[in-house]
Amino acid sequence: MKMMVEIGKRAKAAARQIAGASSSQKNALLEAIAASLEAASQEILQANREDLLVAEAAGLTPALLDRLALNPTRLRGVIADLRKVIDLPDPVGEIFDQTVLPNGLRVHKQRVPLGVLGVIYEARPNVTVDVAGLALKTGNAAILRGGSETIHSNRALVKAIRAGLLSSGLPEDAILFVDDPDRLRVYELLQLHQYVDMLIPRGGAALHAYCRENSRIPVITGGIGICHLFVDYSADLQAAVEVIYNAKVQRPSVCNALDTLLVHHQIARRFLPELVQRLGAAGVSFRADQAARDHLRDRQGQLPPAVTPAGDEDFDTEWLSLVLGVKTVEDLEEAIAHIAEHSTGHSDGILTGDPDHARQFVRSVDSAAVYVNASTRFTDGAQLGLGAEVAISTQRLHARGPMGLRELTTYKWVVQGDYQVRE
Amino acid sequence: MKMMVEIGKRAKAAARQIAGASSSQKNALLEAIAASLEAASQEILQANREDLLVAEAAGLTPALLDRLALNPTRLRGVIADLRKVIDLPDPVGEIFDQTVLPNGLRVHKQRVPLGVLGVIYEARPNVTVDVAGLALKTGNAAILRGGSETIHSNRALVKAIRAGLLSSGLPEDAILFVDDPDRLRVYELLQLHQYVDMLIPRGGAALHAYCRENSRIPVITGGIGICHLFVDYSADLQAAVEVIYNAKVQRPSVCNALDTLLVHHQIARRFLPELVQRLGAAGVSFRADQAARDHLRDRQGQLPPAVTPAGDEDFDTEWLSLVLGVKTVEDLEEAIAHIAEHSTGHSDGILTGDPDHARQFVRSVDSAAVYVNASTRFTDGAQLGLGAEVAISTQRLHARGPMGLRELTTYKWVVQGDYQVRE
Repeated sequence: MKMMVEIGKRAKAAARQIAGASSSQKNALLEAIAASLEAASQEILQANREDLLVAEAAGLTPALLDRLALNPTRLRGVIADLRKVIDLPDPVGEIFDQTVLPNGLRVHKQRVPLGVLGVIYEARPNVTVDVAGLALKTGNAAILRGGSETIHSNRALVKAIRAGLLSSGLPEDAILFVDDPDRLRVYELLQLHQYVDMLIPRGGAALHAYCRENSRIPVITGGIGICHLFVDYSADLQAAVEVIYNAKVQRPSVCNALDTLLVHHQIARRFLPELVQRLGAAGVSFRADQAARDHLRDRQGQLPPAVTPAGDEDFDTEWLSLVLGVKTVEDLEEAIAHIAEHSTGHSDGILTGDPDHARQFVRSVDSAAVYVNASTRFTDGAQLGLGAEVAISTQRLHARGPMGLRELTTYKWVVQGDYQVRE
Repeated sequence: MKMMVEIGKRAKAAARQIAGASSSQKNALLEAIAASLEAASQEILQANREDLLVAEAAGLTPALLDRLALNPTRLRGVIADLRKVIDLPDPVGEIFDQTVLPNGLRVHKQRVPLGVLGVIYEARPNVTVDVAGLALKTGNAAILRGGSETIHSNRALVKAIRAGLLSSGLPEDAILFVDDPDRLRVYELLQLHQYVDMLIPRGGAALHAYCRENSRIPVITGGIGICHLFVDYSADLQAAVEVIYNAKVQRPSVCNALDTLLVHHQIARRFLPELVQRLGAAGVSFRADQAARDHLRDRQGQLPPAVTPAGDEDFDTEWLSLVLGVKTVEDLEEAIAHIAEHSTGHSDGILTGDPDHARQFVRSVDSAAVYVNASTRFTDGAQLGLGAEVAISTQRLHARGPMGLRELTTYKWVVQGDYQVRE
């Protein structure tokens, strides 16, 4: 605990300094860090090779090895992404809710950095640079706790980032790295509410649950999406197939990919065979309810081989793979009720030609992102115009959906007067 | 736990219904509740007398008895306050951050209710009506856990509130009351993250710490204020005395009352004797540092009787009474550094005639409310123009400082397109 308290104190002291940096200072800092990463490229790639050797010896899957691997091209990409943050507008200092009260007090709110961010993440070493860049751009300090499998890479990356801070005359401790793979450090980090203002877990459901259970620091939970699309009878069915294809197939392993398709019973017989053909050809398999299966049988009563009956838990499963739940519904109301019961509140949409149905769906479905006639895959900070993304929140406080730079800030009230007193 | 899970489920189901109510429906509901409270006045006052009898028998202090007592005038005041909420603008449905993306997607954010609020509070029965009114106005459901000493009053109040919901055709379960004084119920409430979206503790530091430690639900912590005013050499000293008098004396028992006065050394000799005389006459006693005491001695070297030396912890104490810490500082920088070290980030201010010093103070002091030439007592939802106040947050996420109706909402992203897919 002593080590982590020490890290907390250092981060908080550095946060006070970096909070006062101007936008141009912070942009110069990001450029200095980019240059420092370039200068340290050989060292970083060598450290990454050490991680890969350990990981290979430990028998990690090729997919995991690929996630943690850096090469010159990928590292250049990481540095290029950091430079893109320079061009984003700095939300810190923004003034809003300005008013003059009847007693003459002049009141406004002013955006300020959150303070110290704690970030707990897994495999990908690019997250280290990503998070450091967004934290520093918004005047925050950050304590980074990466996965043990990338400890050499992260150590080298953080060393280069801190060198950039030093060369810019800003406190190195604005970026701190928990250089100890012991899992107890995660628990200890979660207790540091005196020093850490926001906790961002980036990982699977188990990590989020662990943080929610053990943290005394406010946690941004998210990243779990059981996503729905409802095909209304009035939808453009040809276009609908392409949206569903995109939502399911383009990148099935992510949280905004489609999990369950709801189909209006009136069009099920026309629509479902075409859908199964198009998505089936891409390797999708289907867990369909009784009515959907009936619509999918051929003249001999045979189901396409990719279609199997939906089990009890299939409509409560985030597939993260080329599986799609399919259910027919009587009407819009049943679709909305199904989503209310089974959605994780991430991304849900309607495909319809009826503006009234679109309005009712938008009004009634309370997910972080609600879509009309578009793929759920757009729930992403870059796609929705934020320029960057720190996390996707599926909780309801502070920020919901994709979080960009503004969501790394808070505000203070500024009240200016002429010696007013309260009556 | 079974009882609390049941309460959580009922609240969540009711929240879905109340979220869809229009502003006029919700305003009609508040009027119906006001009428229902009026109709039940005798019953409510009788229940309150039972609470008072139990409390007297238990030997509660007169101050505590006064806090929990209702009488016809106070109850009328509570109902009048509820009716005032009707006139406030409804933040739900507000549309912001509207944009059209290059691919043609039309994106906006829309304010929606948070869902289910959990509120844990003590003695005052008016909080029951207060919180219910603000929750319902913003389309939220609420689970109320009042103190055991007001259980009869709260039971009667909640009965009347639920009758108002029923007569308005809205779900009674939008307001639920934990009708069991066992403290275990508080712990259980804190575990209901599947059903409760935000937890608001209203009470002392111990309650806030308990919630932060045990809650799996996001908690709004706050209400603890070690508040500072710094008197710069350029301040209007006569006006400054009145502001300090107001900040310390007007209502010393609340979180936005002044705790520590910092005085520029150049004016200490002129200013401090006058201050001690004016505030001393109101019963204030002073914990002064060495230099301040030196400035306060008379020709015989005697200190005024109200002045004693400041001890080690006096500058880290929220007094909540007629005690004031006094410290001289060399300059603005020392004042800012003292505040950074000792403030709880609630309300801190500068009294100055120098606009540059005012700017530097506002830039450098990162408290929920930062003041220039005004009393810290203005940190209050009604005083700062919010029309109502749910809590004062001293944490940094979601909301900071006084929280009004808007802070009981979140938003969803609405994305509308013409069958766009992600590239």
